[in-house]
Amino acid sequence: MSAQRHKLAIIGSGNWGSAIAKIAGKNMRRYPDLFEEQVKMYVHEETVEGQPLTKLINERHENVKYLPGVKLPENIVAVPSAVEAAKGADLLIFVLPHQFIPSVCQELKGHISSDARAISMIKGVEVKNGNIRIFADVIEEILGCKCSALSGANIANEVAQDKFSETTIGYREGDLAQAEVFHKVFDTPTFRVGMIEDVAGVSLCGALKNVVAIAAGFTDGLGWGDNAKAAVMRIGLMEMKHFAEEFFDGVKPETFTETSAGIADLITTCFGGRNRKCAEAFVKTGKSFETLEKELLNGQKLQGSETAREIHNFLKARGKVDDYPLFKAVHAIAFEGGIAKELTSKL
Amino acid sequence: MSAQRHKLAIIGSGNWGSAIAKIAGKNMRRYPDLFEEQVKMYVHEETVEGQPLTKLINERHENVKYLPGVKLPENIVAVPSAVEAAKGADLLIFVLPHQFIPSVCQELKGHISSDARAISMIKGVEVKNGNIRIFADVIEEILGCKCSALSGANIANEVAQDKFSETTIGYREGDLAQAEVFHKVFDTPTFRVGMIEDVAGVSLCGALKNVVAIAAGFTDGLGWGDNAKAAVMRIGLMEMKHFAEEFFDGVKPETFTETSAGIADLITTCFGGRNRKCAEAFVKTGKSFETLEKELLNGQKLQGSETAREIHNFLKARGKVDDYPLFKAVHAIAFEGGIAKELTSKL
Repeated sequence: MSAQRHKLAIIGSGNWGSAIAKIAGKNMRRYPDLFEEQVKMYVHEETVEGQPLTKLINERHENVKYLPGVKLPENIVAVPSAVEAAKGADLLIFVLPHQFIPSVCQELKGHISSDARAISMIKGVEVKNGNIRIFADVIEEILGCKCSALSGANIANEVAQDKFSETTIGYREGDLAQAEVFHKVFDTPTFRVGMIEDVAGVSLCGALKNVVAIAAGFTDGLGWGDNAKAAVMRIGLMEMKHFAEEFFDGVKPETFTETSAGIADLITTCFGGRNRKCAEAFVKTGKSFETLEKELLNGQKLQGSETAREIHNFLKARGKVDDYPLFKAVHAIAFEGGIAKELTSKL
Repeated sequence: MSAQRHKLAIIGSGNWGSAIAKIAGKNMRRYPDLFEEQVKMYVHEETVEGQPLTKLINERHENVKYLPGVKLPENIVAVPSAVEAAKGADLLIFVLPHQFIPSVCQELKGHISSDARAISMIKGVEVKNGNIRIFADVIEEILGCKCSALSGANIANEVAQDKFSETTIGYREGDLAQAEVFHKVFDTPTFRVGMIEDVAGVSLCGALKNVVAIAAGFTDGLGWGDNAKAAVMRIGLMEMKHFAEEFFDGVKPETFTETSAGIADLITTCFGGRNRKCAEAFVKTGKSFETLEKELLNGQKLQGSETAREIHNFLKARGKVDDYPLFKAVHAIAFEGGIAKELTSKL
């Protein structure tokens, strides 16, 4: 029996990685016939309070740096090596900042189980040489294992406190059985997991919503009110969907309009997130996004403005900038000295 | 030439009716070949500052009671009779509180042009003897003229101040040419009008969103955070769509998920409106909706709780209550002593 059980590894341990470790760790114990109890979690080692972070996590069962105040189940074991974390695991959760994905995957290459499956929780897209890729594809290509995606209206601290939320797993064509295993890894009474056969759509929602949140933040900074903000969010959602359908195969429109990864995450991001906040301050203060990131985000990165720039460069290389007037306006205002109050004039 | 021009009448003059009069009045002058300049607006006569409201509106070009501080174009003429307002008009805008629709339409019956077309801006639905009707159908049946619907993320005061917003016209099957005339009545650079062949969907969005806003307000009152609120909004949108598809013919799903009448209006209503506000207070104070309406709304009516009750009774008569778990939970909490924190337990 033990040989048939799935073994999980978590590659990453930031705010979101630690919140998901709490959920996954509990579910390992909830389904003992299905999962091995112990879960190794890769922690990029650093010194906190004069001690290694892995040691602190394993002694206190708490990620004191990135998710303080939340107890992790004792079956979560922090290790300072991705290879060690993944050893013997057939289920790999990738929850790292996107810039580390290629190097960590290269490190893991040749060291993962032949039957391993991955799931990507990475927001953002990789734009290189005029091409665009989601990180599930990057992981799949380097490691040679199938990779799903998970995204949703999931502010990590709220999830860690067991407040009600939903999320979405996007799975590969014909891969429903495997998605159902990941469903059991994550689903709880207060963290409801939906599933849709659309890895690209789920991944793109997580990246592109941040561009729309910049636009929503501009409307806040301009004092334009609730009608304008809702209109910009609606138009942004339509451009997100259009972009995905134009440049990726097999994308489902309902991923954008009906799932937690789509419309629900867009709502939380446009009302709560850091992209919205910095965009509001951008209009009110006239400072650059680089400056505001330093002043307001306390070391966190601002993803929306960077994604806006990457998407703009990608569309420009293809002569398609004008087909996405909201994305175009966001880029013009953020990086080309465009006037904020002309945000909607070309929509 | 004059004989071919359309003549507009506005039946109603509250906050929203006055805001729309400002827009429509200007557009009459923008398209002089298409429209007669003067627009009569039916005002339910009352005494304000010791004078008839119609007299004040016509002297000051301002609805001093319901939209103070906003100048109306001088071609808007207030009259105290619906029949007088509609005389000779072939385009009729209905923008009255829904309880007055049957009686005003009965009054108008036999007094409107044979080629008249109507458009309904009425939120809410009529539930009677276990049947449900949108008000565009009520108007059509009584007056015998085709009736479209307009709804969207349109807080009246923001529209009146020319802040950017969008709205949606739902038109009858094959009636696009007529919808395009109404498009010209309303569309401006800051009030963008979309169109979709779906009168029922557009009308139902305007009614059912208020039930979802009650649920969203409950999450605010419970302090559940942004994830939970977005999840409840998403689930509510799906129930709205499901309800419309189950009980009305020809409804388009994208009316709910892609238009201003659908997702955008849901967003403004769940973040800004009075239903959300009263529902939050309901959880925090334990007072009834009847009490909160009196205490918080300054004479305005609370539509969401009443619609929740009507929809519940309608579903109960059909044995379908359990197919709409969010609507069911809202009714249970609002009217059956249900516990607010169990809002999502049956979803």
